[in-house]
Amino acid sequence: MRGLFIGRFQPFHMGHMKVVEEIIGSVDKLVIGIGSAQLSHTENDPFTAGERHMMISESLNEKKIENYYIIPLIDINRYSVWVSHVCSLVPKFDVVYTKNDLSAALFYEAGFEVRQPKLYDREKYSGKEVRRRMIEGEDWRSLVPEGTARIIDDILGVERLKLLSMEGKR
Amino acid sequence: MRGLFIGRFQPFHMGHMKVVEEIIGSVDKLVIGIGSAQLSHTENDPFTAGERHMMISESLNEKKIENYYIIPLIDINRYSVWVSHVCSLVPKFDVVYTKNDLSAALFYEAGFEVRQPKLYDREKYSGKEVRRRMIEGEDWRSLVPEGTARIIDDILGVERLKLLSMEGKR
Amino acid sequence: MRGLFIGRFQPFHMGHMKVVEEIIGSVDKLVIGIGSAQLSHTENDPFTAGERHMMISESLNEKKIENYYIIPLIDINRYSVWVSHVCSLVPKFDVVYTKNDLSAALFYEAGFEVRQPKLYDREKYSGKEVRRRMIEGEDWRSLVPEGTARIIDDILGVERLKLLSMEGKR
Amino acid sequence: MRGLFIGRFQPFHMGHMKVVEEIIGSVDKLVIGIGSAQLSHTENDPFTAGERHMMISESLNEKKIENYYIIPLIDINRYSVWVSHVCSLVPKFDVVYTKNDLSAALFYEAGFEVRQPKLYDREKYSGKEVRRRMIEGEDWRSLVPEGTARIIDDILGVERLKLLSMEGKR
Amino acid sequence: MRGLFIGRFQPFHMGHMKVVEEIIGSVDKLVIGIGSAQLSHTENDPFTAGERHMMISESLNEKKIENYYIIPLIDINRYSVWVSHVCSLVPKFDVVYTKNDLSAALFYEAGFEVRQPKLYDREKYSGKEVRRRMIEGEDWRSLVPEGTARIIDDILGVERLKLLSMEGKR
Amino acid sequence: MRGLFIGRFQPFHMGHMKVVEEIIGSVDKLVIGIGSAQLSHTENDPFTAGERHMMISESLNEKKIENYYIIPLIDINRYSVWVSHVCSLVPKFDVVYTKNDLSAALFYEAGFEVRQPKLYDREKYSGKEVRRRMIEGEDWRSLVPEGTARIIDDILGVERLKLLSMEGKR
Repeated sequence: MRGLFIGRFQPFHMGHMKVVEEIIGSVDKLVIGIGSAQLSHTENDPFTAGERHMMISESLNEKKIENYYIIPLIDINRYSVWVSHVCSLVPKFDVVYTKNDLSAALFYEAGFEVRQPKLYDREKYSGKEVRRRMIEGEDWRSLVPEGTARIIDDILGVERLKLLSMEGKR
Repeated sequence: MRGLFIGRFQPFHMGHMKVVEEIIGSVDKLVIGIGSAQLSHTENDPFTAGERHMMISESLNEKKIENYYIIPLIDINRYSVWVSHVCSLVPKFDVVYTKNDLSAALFYEAGFEVRQPKLYDREKYSGKEVRRRMIEGEDWRSLVPEGTARIIDDILGVERLKLLSMEGKR
Repeated sequence: MRGLFIGRFQPFHMGHMKVVEEIIGSVDKLVIGIGSAQLSHTENDPFTAGERHMMISESLNEKKIENYYIIPLIDINRYSVWVSHVCSLVPKFDVVYTKNDLSAALFYEAGFEVRQPKLYDREKYSGKEVRRRMIEGEDWRSLVPEGTARIIDDILGVERLKLLSMEGKR
Repeated sequence: MRGLFIGRFQPFHMGHMKVVEEIIGSVDKLVIGIGSAQLSHTENDPFTAGERHMMISESLNEKKIENYYIIPLIDINRYSVWVSHVCSLVPKFDVVYTKNDLSAALFYEAGFEVRQPKLYDREKYSGKEVRRRMIEGEDWRSLVPEGTARIIDDILGVERLKLLSMEGKR
Repeated sequence: MRGLFIGRFQPFHMGHMKVVEEIIGSVDKLVIGIGSAQLSHTENDPFTAGERHMMISESLNEKKIENYYIIPLIDINRYSVWVSHVCSLVPKFDVVYTKNDLSAALFYEAGFEVRQPKLYDREKYSGKEVRRRMIEGEDWRSLVPEGTARIIDDILGVERLKLLSMEGKR
Repeated sequence: MRGLFIGRFQPFHMGHMKVVEEIIGSVDKLVIGIGSAQLSHTENDPFTAGERHMMISESLNEKKIENYYIIPLIDINRYSVWVSHVCSLVPKFDVVYTKNDLSAALFYEAGFEVRQPKLYDREKYSGKEVRRRMIEGEDWRSLVPEGTARIIDDILGVERLKLLSMEGKR
């Protein structure tokens, strides 16, 4: 069986990691879809799809997880064709894992099996909280896998995010 | 070192396979970019990016090649921003491998190292020839890896291509 | 004389119906333009253009109104070309009916006759209020024609909207 | 039962008319989709969607045919999402009528019933032949319904097409 | 040396004028990029790129400034390719002048020299304040060069903006 | 009076120069629109809009012509809205000069005065012929103003075009 797990991964954090670890044993392959792949350099979406790809692959490699594919998914901004759009870009899958109600609804209406992954302390393990801590200079490293932190350091991600947040405050 | 190998892979054939085998030993990771990812269901571009992903991964798995990522690349139709577009979507790479002169020129102008992979009997090992044989009912299986042939059979690819070619003839 | 009446119709309600009834006697044909036709499955724009088409046609048929055309209008997101965009998609018209000041201004600047339809108790007869009542489980049926209610029931519209509103609250 | 009939209608000619007359008796409503609705002012696609709407409705009205809807369909240029695109824009339908093999294949793959309408002397009754005769100054009126001819006269369609064909010859 | 100065210029005001006067002596040519060129007829972006071009050129001509080019820059909505997009549209430049932190960051990451122009009483000399005064009927003329005021009068800009702001208040 | 002169200028050649010299005396300002501004790096459209801007401005400066503006015009691919698109991007103009019949027709239908500039030996002074000579290694310099030739040399334009033409021949 193959699963599709979709998220924005801005950045990839421990909450995502735990979902992957929960699913990975029950699938032959896990297809990880990076949503809003075209976005970057904004306060809500600071990292490019390529950077997010590296965060995910570095983090999974550390856990010796290898049976996955990562696919960037550019938004098409028309929900009525979104499921077709995704299906044309990713390799075959049987089950969709998503925390997003809209995404769940669209795949469900299209006849797919949809599973809601368990949420791990959503207040803490959310992209929004990780980004807030980066901007405020608080501890964000404990919320993300080491591989993600290493990539963020490499690309000077905290500096970029702080700068973007200053623009937003104007 | 990481390499980026870009092609349309309509379909993935033995010529592509030989390029991968030639490169794969000299890179830590090979990033395979599926060009014109948005196209499908035309005589020149019959297969979706997801289908092409499966052809490539099945073919590489048969050869026990595992150090690769596959990224669909939707056309942006503005060559002046194409290198930036690709760079934002794929994980980091050091060298570009491409048989396409335009692609080579654009990456070269942008300061990347570009290598032209050796061509293996281009008359025979080309997507165009594979598609022609499919349409004419000639032997195409000897031109593609087994994994690719299996996927094409699964999706009734020959039937689709024949039908699309009839439309073109009208 | 032919009139053009533009709205988003999310959903088509009694306020729209009264405008149609007011106009219909004075035109040979009424062209009804469904604005933001590409949107669906969001809290503000839950229904597809096709679904909205059915709400309108079912509602008008009940009233034995037959001299109308319905045209979906996909947004072009550039107000400077919007009038040309609309004119290229709809059959000929002489007068524009719209409650939207921007739309009125754009058609007026382009030299069209623009008429502001009378508003009927806008607090109550507005798409926003209908959607709010659907989400809150209050009475929304009294605000829409029977034909609209029937279509909304057929497509499980209330369930879809409730689900979309939950996503928005996260 | 409801049917969907898709064409480009550049212009609407007697071949289209005969298809409509053949179908119309067996459906409650006929949804007529104007393909490539965004195109106009080229030698192959001279008329706007609004102009084509008028040709069709004038021609059907002359035949006292009233149980139809006309929907402009802007191209989305990605065949993998085309069926979803169409379905989101048009009211509900049960059967697809199309002479186009690609369109037939896409709807068939998506699970729809597809019927190929009979072709009436395709050499003569084709948009291409009508446009050729307009450009060459030959008799085109006998190939189109009177309603279509009247609209083409109103919009000075022959003059436009001749001018566009001169540009093409440069 | 050539400079690139990017802004939205909704409208061109004394703050912009002072930046131009500060820069113009130190460059051979000043390339002025009109950002979000596709926007117009909204409360935040009321004027077309063509109207903004006239405001700028009229204002600079009054000051006998002639060594400039004005280029409309349509948004591309992908920050990762924005620098390439701009570079492909404007003539060559050596230094970027911008008050926008995002823009500064993107050009800086791409290897350009970026200079932050001094800000002149930003509370007062901002497009937002000028537009607010126009809507409220307060004195806005003292905040813009005479050339700008003349163009705004010519195009009935205040009337347009008031009307657009009414729509926003609904 | 102000004129608008539209062309693709791939590259700007002596034929264009003669049109400018013919017009320039009779207008206060000449607005030069660079068509298909988004295209570059193809055999038919090798140069970016920014490069074409430099060819034009260098060539006009040599002739001491200063009363012009240059505006890049990105294609919108819908002829029905093209005139509105252009008008929103360029400063005000009274007369359109264009050798293109389609462009002439569209502006004429929209109510503008259109003038066909005299053609100077079109076989020789055409972008197509200049590009052919560049590719074939024949004399192209005599067909373009010195300023254009200088820019083409600066950007290694002949090398780029030869490389692009090789790709096309495959």
